[in-house]
Amino acid sequence: MVTEVHVPLGQKAYTIYIGFDLSAYQQQLNSWVVGEKVCLVSNDIVAPYYLSEAKLLFKDYEVDTFILPDGENNKTWENVNKLLTFMLENNYHRQSTMVALGGGVIGDTVGFAASIYQRGIDFIQIPTTLLAQVDSSVGGKTAVNHPLGKNMIGAFHQPRGVWMELQYLETLPEREWRAGLAEVIKISLVADGSFFAWLEENHAGILAREPILIERMIARSIELKADIVVQDTFDRGVRAYVNLGHTFGHAIEHVLGYGVWLHGEAVGLGLRMACDASQYLKAFPASLSKRVHELLDNWQLPKCLPEATAPHDLLQAMRLDKKNDDRGLRFVLLKDMEDPCVETVDNEAYLIELIASYQS
Amino acid sequence: MVTEVHVPLGQKAYTIYIGFDLSAYQQQLNSWVVGEKVCLVSNDIVAPYYLSEAKLLFKDYEVDTFILPDGENNKTWENVNKLLTFMLENNYHRQSTMVALGGGVIGDTVGFAASIYQRGIDFIQIPTTLLAQVDSSVGGKTAVNHPLGKNMIGAFHQPRGVWMELQYLETLPEREWRAGLAEVIKISLVADGSFFAWLEENHAGILAREPILIERMIARSIELKADIVVQDTFDRGVRAYVNLGHTFGHAIEHVLGYGVWLHGEAVGLGLRMACDASQYLKAFPASLSKRVHELLDNWQLPKCLPEATAPHDLLQAMRLDKKNDDRGLRFVLLKDMEDPCVETVDNEAYLIELIASYQS
Repeated sequence: MVTEVHVPLGQKAYTIYIGFDLSAYQQQLNSWVVGEKVCLVSNDIVAPYYLSEAKLLFKDYEVDTFILPDGENNKTWENVNKLLTFMLENNYHRQSTMVALGGGVIGDTVGFAASIYQRGIDFIQIPTTLLAQVDSSVGGKTAVNHPLGKNMIGAFHQPRGVWMELQYLETLPEREWRAGLAEVIKISLVADGSFFAWLEENHAGILAREPILIERMIARSIELKADIVVQDTFDRGVRAYVNLGHTFGHAIEHVLGYGVWLHGEAVGLGLRMACDASQYLKAFPASLSKRVHELLDNWQLPKCLPEATAPHDLLQAMRLDKKNDDRGLRFVLLKDMEDPCVETVDNEAYLIELIASYQS
Repeated sequence: MVTEVHVPLGQKAYTIYIGFDLSAYQQQLNSWVVGEKVCLVSNDIVAPYYLSEAKLLFKDYEVDTFILPDGENNKTWENVNKLLTFMLENNYHRQSTMVALGGGVIGDTVGFAASIYQRGIDFIQIPTTLLAQVDSSVGGKTAVNHPLGKNMIGAFHQPRGVWMELQYLETLPEREWRAGLAEVIKISLVADGSFFAWLEENHAGILAREPILIERMIARSIELKADIVVQDTFDRGVRAYVNLGHTFGHAIEHVLGYGVWLHGEAVGLGLRMACDASQYLKAFPASLSKRVHELLDNWQLPKCLPEATAPHDLLQAMRLDKKNDDRGLRFVLLKDMEDPCVETVDNEAYLIELIASYQS
């Protein structure tokens, strides 16, 4: 079974194909390529598994491959520049296509490179991690990290299409799997309480990667995300809600050093903090908050910060969050299930206390 | 007298104010600023003349100033990165505004920085050179140069508005003035033959910067450019026409080294080559071609390449032009006045001969 999710963004509309074995859809994939040249980019972990397979998907084109080192600490301008230089050296032009084969880091890096190469060329997402499949490959947010903050340099650049081969998940390490689940919890809290209940009910089967559950979980996560992206492509309104847990999460990644924790792990702990803050500041029901913590526990997502993480450092890192404005620090909080809001929080003492409660 | 040109780009529509002494329009300028923070960027040549004056225009805001070194060789990723770092260090956020006070290099660099800072923030163009006023500040093309090619890294990012204070032109060096006139000739050839005739008629007064002529010339150039931009914002069709002379021009800049010739000087020689090629390949009338050469002569724009410029190097540089595709080298040529076309030229021997005819 293959699920198609259409993202109706006018001239930038695209389709996401989701399923185990998409080979019958190769023609659709190829229809996303305009010119003759394809630059297929992956990382050194994914490439040994899937690069030759992916290359075959584009066998009718001139394909170059480019391999970047894996990890969040490689989501840098330097790597974007290497990619751009490679493409200039090989006469890539505006009708060329880039393909991102990998997780969120590859998707964000390649998408950003595509957005600025000769002022923007096409790219295709072939996400290989759960996190990239349920979250980062959909919606056109691309970016690299700056030494001063996560995702600070980037662009909105929609892919021509997303090719979500669920077979690729079979080789995904356990830790990456759990990290991806944090984003699934997030979208359920923001947009679909019954989906959250379904996740609770099936938490063991999902952790065990039962195919029927996986397919349903991923398709539903994407539908919910796509719906929000269509309402607010440029992140000026409701799209902020999919940032639940991310103000804390990005700060954790930044303070620990990119790549020490996986993005999804940081988001997992960020969700705990966001639920606590929602309880304290927005009367989010304690019973719901407890259920979120329990599901995070069941999926063995982090319960506390590494030793010696200073609350003040985290607070400082949050000052660079993209949601902030002249009013100060801004957080996504929950008033209830499916009822998020964006709030200015100027009570620094409370934030310090909240962070401190997660010190190990 | 102030001329207002509106650029109707839907949600990205903006207005250009053109005149000697725009001070009465300060409120309109300020209405383009959403938040409290303004990052005013200029270069070390313009700043001593106009920075404090420009700063006063934003006296109701928190203004930081940032000065970049002047010159095309400074239109680099490194300078964009310096700017982005400065803004991160000073807590600029998505509601902040950047202002570009300078020529095309400052406009392109600041516009590109604004397009990728936190995935895009507002910017305002305050062009201070003729070239920036008649051409580069209108239309939202932003970019920096890559060591392998001009404007290869960039984005389409429309300004919130353009503030064209013609008084700033009073201090513009003669060489810069003439360089800007090359772009005026270009737009007239592409879009308005009677404007070209008017330029011929008034060539002496224009070179002498007579205010009434200047105002009319700049306003007309912008109207013509804006009209094309509205038809084809993302440069997939007719916008290519404003690239007349630029395939040659960019290659000249690249081979000589950025900043050795001014952009407009390279475009001037590029227009000569484009007219010759148009005559040879598209039966562009010899009499018209002669008139273009004469106007370029009258405005003392370059007649030949510097000594020791190798035609093959120029040809190689042209291979990186953004108009190229799988078919090969693409040029904008003229079939007649106001009748441009984009042509694939695969006759390399002819191109080498053409370039060689401009060797000194």
